[in-house]
Amino acid sequence: MISFESDYNNGMLPEILEALGKTNSEKTSGYGFDLYSESAKEKIRKAVDNENAEVFLLIGGTQTNTTVIDSVLMGCEGVICVETGHIEVHESGAVEAFGHKVITLPGENSKLTSSTLSAYMDTFLADETHPHMVQPGMVYISMPTEFGMVYTREELTALYATCQKYNLRLFIDGARLGYGLVSEACDYDLPFLAKHCDVFYIGGTKVGTMMGEAVVFSGMKAPKYFFTNIKRHGALLAKGRMLGIQFDTLFTDNLYFKISRHAIAMATRIRSIFQKHGIAIAYDSPTNQQFVVLSPSLYDALSKKVAFEIWERKSDTEIICRFVTSWATKEEELDELEHILRTL
Amino acid sequence: MISFESDYNNGMLPEILEALGKTNSEKTSGYGFDLYSESAKEKIRKAVDNENAEVFLLIGGTQTNTTVIDSVLMGCEGVICVETGHIEVHESGAVEAFGHKVITLPGENSKLTSSTLSAYMDTFLADETHPHMVQPGMVYISMPTEFGMVYTREELTALYATCQKYNLRLFIDGARLGYGLVSEACDYDLPFLAKHCDVFYIGGTKVGTMMGEAVVFSGMKAPKYFFTNIKRHGALLAKGRMLGIQFDTLFTDNLYFKISRHAIAMATRIRSIFQKHGIAIAYDSPTNQQFVVLSPSLYDALSKKVAFEIWERKSDTEIICRFVTSWATKEEELDELEHILRTL
Amino acid sequence: MISFESDYNNGMLPEILEALGKTNSEKTSGYGFDLYSESAKEKIRKAVDNENAEVFLLIGGTQTNTTVIDSVLMGCEGVICVETGHIEVHESGAVEAFGHKVITLPGENSKLTSSTLSAYMDTFLADETHPHMVQPGMVYISMPTEFGMVYTREELTALYATCQKYNLRLFIDGARLGYGLVSEACDYDLPFLAKHCDVFYIGGTKVGTMMGEAVVFSGMKAPKYFFTNIKRHGALLAKGRMLGIQFDTLFTDNLYFKISRHAIAMATRIRSIFQKHGIAIAYDSPTNQQFVVLSPSLYDALSKKVAFEIWERKSDTEIICRFVTSWATKEEELDELEHILRTL
Amino acid sequence: MISFESDYNNGMLPEILEALGKTNSEKTSGYGFDLYSESAKEKIRKAVDNENAEVFLLIGGTQTNTTVIDSVLMGCEGVICVETGHIEVHESGAVEAFGHKVITLPGENSKLTSSTLSAYMDTFLADETHPHMVQPGMVYISMPTEFGMVYTREELTALYATCQKYNLRLFIDGARLGYGLVSEACDYDLPFLAKHCDVFYIGGTKVGTMMGEAVVFSGMKAPKYFFTNIKRHGALLAKGRMLGIQFDTLFTDNLYFKISRHAIAMATRIRSIFQKHGIAIAYDSPTNQQFVVLSPSLYDALSKKVAFEIWERKSDTEIICRFVTSWATKEEELDELEHILRTL
Repeated sequence: MISFESDYNNGMLPEILEALGKTNSEKTSGYGFDLYSESAKEKIRKAVDNENAEVFLLIGGTQTNTTVIDSVLMGCEGVICVETGHIEVHESGAVEAFGHKVITLPGENSKLTSSTLSAYMDTFLADETHPHMVQPGMVYISMPTEFGMVYTREELTALYATCQKYNLRLFIDGARLGYGLVSEACDYDLPFLAKHCDVFYIGGTKVGTMMGEAVVFSGMKAPKYFFTNIKRHGALLAKGRMLGIQFDTLFTDNLYFKISRHAIAMATRIRSIFQKHGIAIAYDSPTNQQFVVLSPSLYDALSKKVAFEIWERKSDTEIICRFVTSWATKEEELDELEHILRTL
Repeated sequence: MISFESDYNNGMLPEILEALGKTNSEKTSGYGFDLYSESAKEKIRKAVDNENAEVFLLIGGTQTNTTVIDSVLMGCEGVICVETGHIEVHESGAVEAFGHKVITLPGENSKLTSSTLSAYMDTFLADETHPHMVQPGMVYISMPTEFGMVYTREELTALYATCQKYNLRLFIDGARLGYGLVSEACDYDLPFLAKHCDVFYIGGTKVGTMMGEAVVFSGMKAPKYFFTNIKRHGALLAKGRMLGIQFDTLFTDNLYFKISRHAIAMATRIRSIFQKHGIAIAYDSPTNQQFVVLSPSLYDALSKKVAFEIWERKSDTEIICRFVTSWATKEEELDELEHILRTL
Repeated sequence: MISFESDYNNGMLPEILEALGKTNSEKTSGYGFDLYSESAKEKIRKAVDNENAEVFLLIGGTQTNTTVIDSVLMGCEGVICVETGHIEVHESGAVEAFGHKVITLPGENSKLTSSTLSAYMDTFLADETHPHMVQPGMVYISMPTEFGMVYTREELTALYATCQKYNLRLFIDGARLGYGLVSEACDYDLPFLAKHCDVFYIGGTKVGTMMGEAVVFSGMKAPKYFFTNIKRHGALLAKGRMLGIQFDTLFTDNLYFKISRHAIAMATRIRSIFQKHGIAIAYDSPTNQQFVVLSPSLYDALSKKVAFEIWERKSDTEIICRFVTSWATKEEELDELEHILRTL
Repeated sequence: MISFESDYNNGMLPEILEALGKTNSEKTSGYGFDLYSESAKEKIRKAVDNENAEVFLLIGGTQTNTTVIDSVLMGCEGVICVETGHIEVHESGAVEAFGHKVITLPGENSKLTSSTLSAYMDTFLADETHPHMVQPGMVYISMPTEFGMVYTREELTALYATCQKYNLRLFIDGARLGYGLVSEACDYDLPFLAKHCDVFYIGGTKVGTMMGEAVVFSGMKAPKYFFTNIKRHGALLAKGRMLGIQFDTLFTDNLYFKISRHAIAMATRIRSIFQKHGIAIAYDSPTNQQFVVLSPSLYDALSKKVAFEIWERKSDTEIICRFVTSWATKEEELDELEHILRTL
């Protein structure tokens, strides 16, 4: 059965599999103190166009979010994000487990706007009781967002300026960063993004690797004891070179962007396939997650032949469903999806 | 340069690399809801000889320790371990990060004895102020220990009985479990171990896989919401099948034990090589970690040609050094070590 | 200057001061193991009409909320409350400091309705990704609410039934419980409330004592190690009898309810004073907190002569202000308030 | 029955009771923003001889320890103390509840020596694996210690110098500070102590007040958001003036030291009473806690007529018992103790 369930339903890039095979018999130091990890970090610093950026390789998204947030914030500081933010909704309270509140603000089209942030901070500071409240210390956004949306150059610039005005750190969750950066909706590149936040990460798990997220401190220095904190969060891989090899491969010959472009091309085609069949688009996502509105009967018929996720049961007659592409999506899978839709 | 630095300085078993390659183009559900993970769990239940055991696949040791401990204990309960226990010494306070105290007792030869435990509990309960103290809720031991020692059948039986007497859960850190079970010093098998504790894990990272630890609840039911807690601890791999494939391979055709036996054979040879050259053994370990006493001059000479770790600077003239073998250690590496020692 | 700033801007009941004086030269055991504490608990069990209720005396509200919530919930469980709930807004993230998420739902008139709760739980359970989310384990409400509102008999009954349906514990923050129970809007008594929740507390700090909150487990057993957890939360008073004496006095001769009635009478008069002068009531509170809408110029004039708090700057022309009465409010203070208003 | 159970088995100083009575009908702002709290802080700054010291009034010892430690340390930092330290033994894991490890070192006569600390830090830093460990960030000592011992001028000076050498903050738990400072064994005064640590507190609960501990940041600035953190720890008293009035009284006319001297005089007499009756002194404490060795039969007889605590059951024939004096101990109580001993 063809599957558009997620962008982590696949294996790893053939290039990564090959690199793992080639290096398999070597012996190296653990915990990331190996040449592959060094090389990967150097390539990332180049891609980010910041030779002073500090790069760390962690294993998965939730642990990366928690490690960064907990390391940057003081005890009674909280992190601001939109109501649909991944740390708010789908991380089982990992941020709270380390003692920090997630402060939610309404998103516009799943994005945090600088004006929403600004208004919140003004109200907070004007409230005389604010010393009894959680102190906002950081802003967390996802690029692209959980609904596949892309921050524009103007939006990101304004948001970072607002963060700086209120002395908040800006942290960008880039679990799907590649798919966001190569989207037509994106009018900037990786170095621009790196210059417009304090810390972000380049997602590997959903963009080519079997696991791994590369944290980049580009706008601030890494917090003291960050390595120790990675360990404390259970996010330090003993065989660290496995992450090094994967990111080294990903950042060789622009592979990260090439494969991201393929995913976007596939997503664009999925969208047009659905539109051709008169199926409504739920959110106007320009990235690798496409959201469509299915009737219950169409859902029943389609889900027997194609794997995909229900995003939200909007009403009795409307089920919003998500179809996700990745570097691993094949044209033939789309041909089959089209064929299935035609026959339903 | 040959390396005996650790048992995680290598790649993965060729069988695992092959299995990853074969399955790479497939698409499966994430988070461990795939056939490979199911198969791995079933094989582990068989190997453990307990069809009701609940098995979970996590990524690394520190996160596994913290997830199990935090899920089993109540807030004001602590976990007992010996002063040399991994959770006490080398996990950056991960257990405390989740609010639990590590209560240390003196070890005998790095092992916790039932009499030490018993004496501690009697004193604790006799102390009228004990409601003001951290309540002991669990015992953590490593098998083999951090110094390579093996609990005997008698010791393990007594320890578990003592735990049950005082209503303490027994948790066994099996990061190197394979190496312990196949050691000559071990007079029991995996099902026996599983019957004499509440929860334990089968280490993959140090015994053949690129990463992964298989938690087995054999003497108790898995705590409510354990899956959610894995996520909360950042220990849930999105591409869960990567763990499934690795443990499925490891528990096919007794591979786990075969490769463990190889490591022990290599360790035994390392030991005899050192003894032949008149170098003292520091701790009488029957497993894959061997500890020798080097003079500073010998250390300097040897460390230029062989990678290994300093364990402890015991005195000005004695440096305790650790040499570790694994499934990946080759006879030729030992030949070279012997050659180097002969020429020094 | 007369003050309606809060219900903790005063001293303690003369009866309590007297009792402290009378007993001052005695020596008793610490930590609540004294006859006064025992007597207070027994009187509270009687007032609650539940001889099996377990009663604990803590010092302040925030620590009480956190101790109860943290002791009842498992690690990955969260507590549900309305967006205006005290634990969400004004406790500096104390609940999160102990690892638990506060899950907010919209309130109706600052109250949580059973239908809102029910709808949330149905959506939560229907969402297939809910194992990746914080698990709702408890509902927290304040009676009266932070805006002075009173749950009716019907509302409380429905809410508790809904909690039980979804296996959620119901916890009532009674920091101002006395003022709520004697309000005209309240159609039930203390035993009824105790029967319609799992755990609640009887606030002393704001209702007569210098400090102290009496936690009552009436619908569930106190969690294991609750005493130890009180200590762990820093909420155990060494000179525990000081709390015992205060609550013993409070629950002698119905004092708690008598003084609460006085506060409500004073609040009713404040309300009518404002109405008489054409000042709008912001929220229709039937308890000891009254909220009025002042123009900026009236605010400026009035705040020079009377102490009170700004609740919210609603618009450029409307400032919502809070006037609070208590057992300590005097008729003469209201006379003066009326006089001041007349002259402005 | 006369009682030497503890120094918190009594009421409050008559002067404090009187001050509470006099001010009871006043209305003041909450949370410590009142003139009494301001006055108390100013008097403490004078007593400490440091006009820049920052003073905060908290309620009890455990919450004070945790609030200070958690506010000063970063996430993966731990606090060093002797094995008998109060935070290690008798606070139910409150420090760990906020995520920090208590690192224990052996005490000498219950005191931490600079050489023990120095040796530990050298070993820690020399260990190449120390980035995987909890990072020492603070040293906690009690003055006097849990066994009644007093740090000398020389010891304190050396300890603080060692802390500064290794970039560790020194925090002194002064729950019984008064009794320590006026002891004959103490060769310095409060300003000297304040100059030889970063932060300490002046205990009220055990030295005259009904509750309250005054935290003084004398060697460092108070951490950012310390007020908010007090709230987050549940340690902020709503009726803050109650603490202000107590400390204001305590630091008027040297009352704190006068009453401390009385307690020491009483302790000295207890000691000589026991010695006169041939009862061995267990630890040579120069402060208000006296430790004697009783036989089981003497224990049985004495404990029927006098309240006191068992400290440790040392052997079948030796029970170490603690007799504590305070500002509230009366000569007649000692007369009675002497009389009882004579008749046994």
